[in-house]
Amino acid sequence: MLRIAVLGAGRIGKIHAANVATNPRTKLVVVADPWKDGVDALAKQLGCEAAYDYASAVDRDDVDAVFIGTPTEFHIELMLRAVKLGKPVICEKPIDMDYERAKAAVEELERLNGRVMLAFNRRFDPDYLRLRRAIDDGEIGVVRQVIITSRDPALAARAYLESSGGIFRDMTIHDFDMARSLLGEEPVEVFAVGSRLVDPTLESIPDYDSVMVLMRTASGRQCHINCCREAVYGFDQRLEISGSKGMLLNENHRSNNVRRYGAEATDVADPLLNFFLERHADSYKIELDSFLDALETNSPMLATPRDGLLALRLANCATESAETGKVVRVGNY
Amino acid sequence: MLRIAVLGAGRIGKIHAANVATNPRTKLVVVADPWKDGVDALAKQLGCEAAYDYASAVDRDDVDAVFIGTPTEFHIELMLRAVKLGKPVICEKPIDMDYERAKAAVEELERLNGRVMLAFNRRFDPDYLRLRRAIDDGEIGVVRQVIITSRDPALAARAYLESSGGIFRDMTIHDFDMARSLLGEEPVEVFAVGSRLVDPTLESIPDYDSVMVLMRTASGRQCHINCCREAVYGFDQRLEISGSKGMLLNENHRSNNVRRYGAEATDVADPLLNFFLERHADSYKIELDSFLDALETNSPMLATPRDGLLALRLANCATESAETGKVVRVGNY
Amino acid sequence: MLRIAVLGAGRIGKIHAANVATNPRTKLVVVADPWKDGVDALAKQLGCEAAYDYASAVDRDDVDAVFIGTPTEFHIELMLRAVKLGKPVICEKPIDMDYERAKAAVEELERLNGRVMLAFNRRFDPDYLRLRRAIDDGEIGVVRQVIITSRDPALAARAYLESSGGIFRDMTIHDFDMARSLLGEEPVEVFAVGSRLVDPTLESIPDYDSVMVLMRTASGRQCHINCCREAVYGFDQRLEISGSKGMLLNENHRSNNVRRYGAEATDVADPLLNFFLERHADSYKIELDSFLDALETNSPMLATPRDGLLALRLANCATESAETGKVVRVGNY
Amino acid sequence: MLRIAVLGAGRIGKIHAANVATNPRTKLVVVADPWKDGVDALAKQLGCEAAYDYASAVDRDDVDAVFIGTPTEFHIELMLRAVKLGKPVICEKPIDMDYERAKAAVEELERLNGRVMLAFNRRFDPDYLRLRRAIDDGEIGVVRQVIITSRDPALAARAYLESSGGIFRDMTIHDFDMARSLLGEEPVEVFAVGSRLVDPTLESIPDYDSVMVLMRTASGRQCHINCCREAVYGFDQRLEISGSKGMLLNENHRSNNVRRYGAEATDVADPLLNFFLERHADSYKIELDSFLDALETNSPMLATPRDGLLALRLANCATESAETGKVVRVGNY
Repeated sequence: MLRIAVLGAGRIGKIHAANVATNPRTKLVVVADPWKDGVDALAKQLGCEAAYDYASAVDRDDVDAVFIGTPTEFHIELMLRAVKLGKPVICEKPIDMDYERAKAAVEELERLNGRVMLAFNRRFDPDYLRLRRAIDDGEIGVVRQVIITSRDPALAARAYLESSGGIFRDMTIHDFDMARSLLGEEPVEVFAVGSRLVDPTLESIPDYDSVMVLMRTASGRQCHINCCREAVYGFDQRLEISGSKGMLLNENHRSNNVRRYGAEATDVADPLLNFFLERHADSYKIELDSFLDALETNSPMLATPRDGLLALRLANCATESAETGKVVRVGNY
Repeated sequence: MLRIAVLGAGRIGKIHAANVATNPRTKLVVVADPWKDGVDALAKQLGCEAAYDYASAVDRDDVDAVFIGTPTEFHIELMLRAVKLGKPVICEKPIDMDYERAKAAVEELERLNGRVMLAFNRRFDPDYLRLRRAIDDGEIGVVRQVIITSRDPALAARAYLESSGGIFRDMTIHDFDMARSLLGEEPVEVFAVGSRLVDPTLESIPDYDSVMVLMRTASGRQCHINCCREAVYGFDQRLEISGSKGMLLNENHRSNNVRRYGAEATDVADPLLNFFLERHADSYKIELDSFLDALETNSPMLATPRDGLLALRLANCATESAETGKVVRVGNY
Repeated sequence: MLRIAVLGAGRIGKIHAANVATNPRTKLVVVADPWKDGVDALAKQLGCEAAYDYASAVDRDDVDAVFIGTPTEFHIELMLRAVKLGKPVICEKPIDMDYERAKAAVEELERLNGRVMLAFNRRFDPDYLRLRRAIDDGEIGVVRQVIITSRDPALAARAYLESSGGIFRDMTIHDFDMARSLLGEEPVEVFAVGSRLVDPTLESIPDYDSVMVLMRTASGRQCHINCCREAVYGFDQRLEISGSKGMLLNENHRSNNVRRYGAEATDVADPLLNFFLERHADSYKIELDSFLDALETNSPMLATPRDGLLALRLANCATESAETGKVVRVGNY
Repeated sequence: MLRIAVLGAGRIGKIHAANVATNPRTKLVVVADPWKDGVDALAKQLGCEAAYDYASAVDRDDVDAVFIGTPTEFHIELMLRAVKLGKPVICEKPIDMDYERAKAAVEELERLNGRVMLAFNRRFDPDYLRLRRAIDDGEIGVVRQVIITSRDPALAARAYLESSGGIFRDMTIHDFDMARSLLGEEPVEVFAVGSRLVDPTLESIPDYDSVMVLMRTASGRQCHINCCREAVYGFDQRLEISGSKGMLLNENHRSNNVRRYGAEATDVADPLLNFFLERHADSYKIELDSFLDALETNSPMLATPRDGLLALRLANCATESAETGKVVRVGNY
């Protein structure tokens, strides 16, 4: 049983802590957060210790591995601290908001041969894993076109948006990661457009709420991403991959499988699952098992800090493209 | 090109006449109906002759085959007249409302080696034909259970219901035919219940508006039929066949493939196609081609008068069962 | 926090124990099972005590409520023991294999005003709860016809089948419960047929592997159930309710929402979820919350021992009907 | 009854001629084609006259309206000839392969107040018309993003491709028309990428087989089009429109509504309809009725030569963008 410290007792920390506590392969030793009330309550509920500073939890002798769910500003420091102690890490994305700092950290982590999984939740979604398997098994032959739809249910709070780094770095980053993975090749060219169709006042941040991206790889594979900060019908996350032998579609999820028929409408379903916590409840559990599997079999992590860095690079290219109205070569970045 | 007379210029006669007129393998020679205005207008539109009595149209030397879409009371007489002249026939169902008369007619037609197709429209539906092919190809192995759903969009006019022969003989008759065909064996036992949940005053006919049937074949295959004279969401016709290697489902049809998403509901489709004329528009065309194919290749018709007789027998068993509350053995009938 | 003892450390006991351990409203005090190795391992993993006899766990002062997941033969005794101590109970179905013993127990539990939930898992399925809400909200008007499909993925082991009480009492019992609930009225008449289409040797038990049931309520509402011990495509559980204003359909579940398109086939999905443990993973959690809600608000349980008894009565009627080939009046039972 | 001449006895001419012959509001007077055998056979089958030159058929006194389905090079000349005689016209797309010639023709037709419908088949598809109605009724609020998928089942013959004008002008042209219509605003900016993923030898034409387009309107609405000359699973034509109040999806069509379940796969459907003749069989009938409605009510045609010209402009912008790798402003064209 791997003994784990969970850093962060917020929304995402709670989920990870509960999964660690109930996974038969792990033991939750301590949750750490400077927010005393929060961390005390969480520790009590889950029957583990509470710590008020992150570093001490990392350092404990009875902690074998670390789960980082703190604010972004602590990610690099805590990852490096754990890795230098030889402890494997799961770290929430992003590595850092700044590309150069993130790049330096990734290179340092790689130099140290750190065992670090970057927690891109969609990489552990059962649907994504099924797509992955179909592609790897050659079911659709050579990949040609990837289409990614990603819409949040509602505009986030203004304060969140102002510190988010912009829609491409905050939201589309997950889609850039999906794009890289599903294309099977690195995009070499990015074109993006951004609009403010939900809230024109985002111009003062400045940010966009509705964007479309078009990317191409060196061999000519193509990818389109569309993204919007608001979809009244729920959290809309669809993937499509077409290839020489077929196509794969990933449809949305709902809270139930009931369909209603009436005089005006038929096959009526309820709204989509509200947001990522509901949509990815299973992903968080699978993520933990995937981490444990990689450690046990000494295999590569399914998502690495390098993946985070390369997705961030595409987000930066898209941001520049939307601002300049020009195509951006990824290699120039 | 087969030269055809269409008998009957009503709703169904019009459809058959237009299909004969535009099928490249047939020529519409004459439409016949004592209703002069109707038949004159139809003949003018389709560029053929009009006749005011059925028999003379059957007898014409330039008529090779006969399509009977008259009122039921003329079916037996006209089928026999054509068959005795050696002319093949497509005849609308039913053969006759009376089982004994129908039985005698079927035996006479068979004795005369008449080439007669009974126009059970669902036998020529592309969906049914696909189910048929899957079963024949062994896709679901040995058939075990058949479930048939059959609901009309709205209660028919009282006058129609009063002369309909009752829901089992008028409406469920199509489902009994499907049941026989999909089970691949004859039912030996019928149990049925009937209720008046749409219109309690049907008791004075007497008739039911909502029925359920359960049948069993000698080898133990099972079939359920549910039927209702009213479904506010449209004409509901579904088939399900489960077997040792899989299952087949036949879903409903709509006028378009658009799905709507909103804050309250997702994947919303329009109502089902309204009724059999819309639902089976293609079936009527395929029926004609199937008739021509059978003639050209000297093969059996896909639906025969004997099929009509055996479906009527099951309808009679169901009627007796619903009235007595007891199981009816088909062989005793 | 309600302090709970879980009786039984088998397949279902483990699920309930884990749910009790992670539900923030409950504390798992003890798991009890004469199977020492099993109960010790479970207690260790979940951080609670282990007991080797059921009764002592019921009696503990630090146990507020009892969750019975033992073999059926202990159900009545343990329910009554807990109720007499004033402790609320969740008990797995069935109450007892014998109708008369079950009836006596239900009457005694009711006399004692026991707070007992009978764990019909489908009553807590999110899909069923959505259907329930739609019916209660009048979305489909007055219920007319209910159709229930229930197929297991594969024939159970012979030993299980031999002690199961027969398909109607073992498997269709859940469907009888659904039927009662969805019809909104008690069935007054039951007709059933049973066949051995999967395994003819079941005759020696004797039991059936494929059955169809038809039931009617006093007002004429109708219900059909079809049930099979084997469906190669997975655990098939569908519900359909049609009414005066519309229809509700409950479709099956899969492990992912990926659809595959190729040259031969399109919209291809993976098999259905394998069996009830996967299909009803959420139901077991909701069941616990529903129990807690009922206790907190002093409301009726969503499923009671009386519900179990009435479902058993229908199963007995169906068994008799299939054996005699005759319709069985429920009131005569 | 409008008396109509159909020009062209090829694949599309045959479809239009049959629809004219069976529409109760029209009379097919003559079909014209220099291909004598073809036009004679068609005229005989449909009971109308045959002509061997297009112009004489246009000029006939007993012809009220003209349906042009000739090779593209005759479109402008024949449209103008009919319009100058005051005869309304339905003309197959494109107006002309050359933008300047097409532009001059459209301006001349508009100056003459010609009643001309350009036969963009998708404008008359029941699915498109339903989308149109939903948008016009405000069901999805203000349109934000449009996503268009358009894949042909198989690469066309080399000779066809060589004279096609390129994928954007030959195939994507329909999608550009859909984009303009569904966006409700003119695109002002076009970016496109083209690849040869199906057949690398297309470089010698030169042409692409796989393209993606991204467009933006002045108010910031966005549109993505993806297009491929090959999809092994059939003719793939999907539309998606998201707006402030919801989303609309247009799914594909199949030849039947049967779903198959087996041990390996469930809900399996047959391939999509093979190509546009099957997919748009209904559209061609609705197109004729829409033309007749516009004439009778003196309303605008649902698709005009100007629409053809503006779609061609977007195709040219996309061609330039794919060739230069740069964004193209539509206004500069």
